[in-house]
Amino acid sequence: VQGRRLEHVRLVHRARPGDSLRVGELGGRLGEAQIVRLSPQVLELDYCLNKPPPAPVPVTVLLALPRPKKVRRILRSLAALGIKRIVLTNSFRVEKSFWQSPLLKPAAVREQLLLGLEQAGDTVLPEVIHEPLFRPFVEDRLPALAQGCRRLVAHPLGAEPCPHALNEPLVLAVGPEGGFIPYEISRLQEYGFTAVHLGARVLCVETAVLSLLGRLLP
Amino acid sequence: VQGRRLEHVRLVHRARPGDSLRVGELGGRLGEAQIVRLSPQVLELDYCLNKPPPAPVPVTVLLALPRPKKVRRILRSLAALGIKRIVLTNSFRVEKSFWQSPLLKPAAVREQLLLGLEQAGDTVLPEVIHEPLFRPFVEDRLPALAQGCRRLVAHPLGAEPCPHALNEPLVLAVGPEGGFIPYEISRLQEYGFTAVHLGARVLCVETAVLSLLGRLLP
Repeated sequence: VQGRRLEHVRLVHRARPGDSLRVGELGGRLGEAQIVRLSPQVLELDYCLNKPPPAPVPVTVLLALPRPKKVRRILRSLAALGIKRIVLTNSFRVEKSFWQSPLLKPAAVREQLLLGLEQAGDTVLPEVIHEPLFRPFVEDRLPALAQGCRRLVAHPLGAEPCPHALNEPLVLAVGPEGGFIPYEISRLQEYGFTAVHLGARVLCVETAVLSLLGRLLP
Repeated sequence: VQGRRLEHVRLVHRARPGDSLRVGELGGRLGEAQIVRLSPQVLELDYCLNKPPPAPVPVTVLLALPRPKKVRRILRSLAALGIKRIVLTNSFRVEKSFWQSPLLKPAAVREQLLLGLEQAGDTVLPEVIHEPLFRPFVEDRLPALAQGCRRLVAHPLGAEPCPHALNEPLVLAVGPEGGFIPYEISRLQEYGFTAVHLGARVLCVETAVLSLLGRLLP
C-alpha cells in the first residue's frame, strides 16, 4: 500500500509493525490485516478478509446537481451512509456551469466515494449517474429506475411531513438551493412522487439530505 | 442594510426596487420587506414583522469539539435545524490545539450561527457553551443542563439502535472522530445517558449529527 493510505496509517493511526488494521477489498470483503513492514515508502500487510460488507441501503438519491464544492462532500456522506445509487440531475435552478466542473469527472467522483466507504467501513462503490436533462430523464429513465420503490420529493411546501423509518426501497429526490420549480415538482408527482417537508425551516441541500436519510432509514 | 446581506440581495437574489424579501429581526419576528432603494452601497427596506419565528427544537447537542474547520459547518447546520443549545466539550480524542482556534472565538461562532438562521428563516440565536474539561463538566454542570431530558450518546458500540421521532426534550451527545473512550461513555452512562448506534457504518461527526437529528426529531 502506498500514497494516501500509507500516509494515513503512518500519521493518523501512528501504527507500527505488528499492529492490526481493519481492511477491506474494493467490491469484496472486510477483514483484519497485520502490518508486516512499514516505511515512509511502503506498507506491507498480511491480511485475511472474512466478513461481508454492511448491507446496502435500498435508497436511490436523486439530487438536483449541487454546487460542485458541495457535491464532493455530499457524495462522500452518501457513500458513508451506504447509499448505492445517486442520480445527479438538472433543474431550472441548477447553474449550467456546474455540469462542466472538473469535480464531476469520474476520477474526482470516485475519490470522494472511496473516502466515504473508507470512513464507513464499506467496500461497495455507489453508482453515480449524470442526467443533465431533467425532462427526458424523468420521462424515459426514472420510471424504470424507481420501479417498485416508494417515491418522495423533499419540498418545503410539501403537503405532509416526511415519514420516519421506512422499511422498503425508496427513491428520494432533493432539489437545488431554492428548490425544484413547480413544473418540476408536478412532473415528479405525475411519476408517483409525494412531496414531503421537514418543518418550517429551509435547509441547505447537504443538511436536508442527511436529515432526511437519518429520518427515512429504519 | 450593507455588507454581506446587501451583496446577497444584489448578486444572488438579483432583486430590484419594489421587490419583496423575507426578513427577520434577530431575536424577534419574521416578516416581509419591500426594497425602497438599492445601490452598490446601501439597501433600504420598508418592512413589517408580523410572524413569530419557528418553534425552537428542544434538543441540546453535546459535541466533543470537532476539528475547527468542521465545527463551523456543524454550527451552521445545527442553527439551521433549530437547535438552541450546543455544548462543545473536551474528550480524550480531541486535540488540545483545537481549543485555541480563532474559529471558536465568539465573533466567528456567531457568524456561523447567523448564516444558519438566515438559511432556515429563524431569528433566535443558539447558545454555544465551551466546556474544555470533560469531567468537571459532566459532574458539575451536565446534571442541571440535562434535567428532565432524555439522554442519548451516539456510540458505534451502543447496545440499541437510535430511536425515531422522540417527542420530548433531549440531550444528544456525539463523540469525536474515533469516538468517546470507554471511560467517557461510562461516565455519561452514570449520568443517565443511553448509548445508541446508527448501524454498522462508522460516520464522520457531521454526517452522524445530522442523521441522528433527522431521526430523533418528530
